[in-house]
Amino acid sequence: MVSDPSTNSGSPRAGSRGDAVVLLSGGLDSYTAAAIARSHGYRLFALTLRYGQRHAHELRSARAVAEALQVARHLELDVDLSVFGGSSLTGGQPVPKDRPLDAREIPSTYVPARNTVFLALAMAWAEVLAAEDVFIGVNVLDYSGYPDCRPEFLAAFERLASLATARGVQGGAFRIHAPLLQMTKAEIIRTGLALGLDYGLTHSCYDPAPDGRPCGRCDSCALRAAGFAQARAADPLLSR
Amino acid sequence: MVSDPSTNSGSPRAGSRGDAVVLLSGGLDSYTAAAIARSHGYRLFALTLRYGQRHAHELRSARAVAEALQVARHLELDVDLSVFGGSSLTGGQPVPKDRPLDAREIPSTYVPARNTVFLALAMAWAEVLAAEDVFIGVNVLDYSGYPDCRPEFLAAFERLASLATARGVQGGAFRIHAPLLQMTKAEIIRTGLALGLDYGLTHSCYDPAPDGRPCGRCDSCALRAAGFAQARAADPLLSR
Repeated sequence: MVSDPSTNSGSPRAGSRGDAVVLLSGGLDSYTAAAIARSHGYRLFALTLRYGQRHAHELRSARAVAEALQVARHLELDVDLSVFGGSSLTGGQPVPKDRPLDAREIPSTYVPARNTVFLALAMAWAEVLAAEDVFIGVNVLDYSGYPDCRPEFLAAFERLASLATARGVQGGAFRIHAPLLQMTKAEIIRTGLALGLDYGLTHSCYDPAPDGRPCGRCDSCALRAAGFAQARAADPLLSR
Repeated sequence: MVSDPSTNSGSPRAGSRGDAVVLLSGGLDSYTAAAIARSHGYRLFALTLRYGQRHAHELRSARAVAEALQVARHLELDVDLSVFGGSSLTGGQPVPKDRPLDAREIPSTYVPARNTVFLALAMAWAEVLAAEDVFIGVNVLDYSGYPDCRPEFLAAFERLASLATARGVQGGAFRIHAPLLQMTKAEIIRTGLALGLDYGLTHSCYDPAPDGRPCGRCDSCALRAAGFAQARAADPLLSR
């Protein structure tokens, strides 16, 4: 598992690193993680999951972001986790608002097994592409308490992948890259701005208005606002 | 990971073991694995994945089997792995026929990452149900060479689950049961017949005729025929 964003540094040249599958939600984090992959020379295969999230606006953002990143291919796949219930992010119960950002309990926006499902699907595509690398924009610092955003989870998934796939059995490598893992939201934003990203394309709110405007009060809005404030940058989404 | 079918034995009483998620394909193996779970007193929550397989007949069988098992709930979920390609089971290339059953290479019917995706989805539902147990009908002896049917894969997934879920983080148990893992196809069939199962409800063929009749020549048909022959039993599917 590779969590250091500089691990793959050197001279970034397009096409020099081979192909990578990037999980792209339309949010700020996955956009930045994918852009880091591109800056290191990977050709990007972007995978967006329609998992029953409330915020279909995220999907429009994923398309805009994929286009901005000039990905080689963008796949959208349905896997409706809302059938299981158990998360405010997929309906049934309201998204919590005005929660302290340092709360330690796992919030109701946690979607059971989401990142395991997402990484398994990314692994499936990577195996077919004969790609060794998967990028995911998870983050352990501003992580809202989700168990499947922790380094030990990612390391365990990478071990699993070596046993789960024909590629692994045949001795092929498989790496999960989480370049944002140890970064603060402000560091993520500064990194993205330095790479020239337009965060106005992204969408973070868990519970937007029908026209897409962020609520400003959910965990995701609060983390985003705090990140831009700490980075001393203006959020282009709010000035539109 | 629990691979011994007798591990959970004792006095099988309905409702005495709590809830279990069972992966139900409509094939002979998953029907038997689910019936073993039921015989040990679990209340069954059956999950069938429509993953883009050629054989939609499998899905009809899954419904019939779920009804025969009197499951508490049967969910069918779309996760179209055919978008990635890479398997003859999801189209694009022909299903191999008349392959020797002792061939060691991984056949083209292997669907990249399928069991990882399936177990991740079963884990998602189990977490919402607060169930500790997932049953999967994989088998390492007559396994057609799939990497994600091996004991080391299942053990790695169980370790991953303890890190991936809120339940795991809070110290809750999570067990993957593979009661057929070390059984021959004949032993599986004898076990199912002893439990009173009607294998005429099931469907195994990778490449059936439009009317559902098995081809008789794919790996799955060949393994099934050899299993019934070794068990000295008639396959009710062929006498219909």
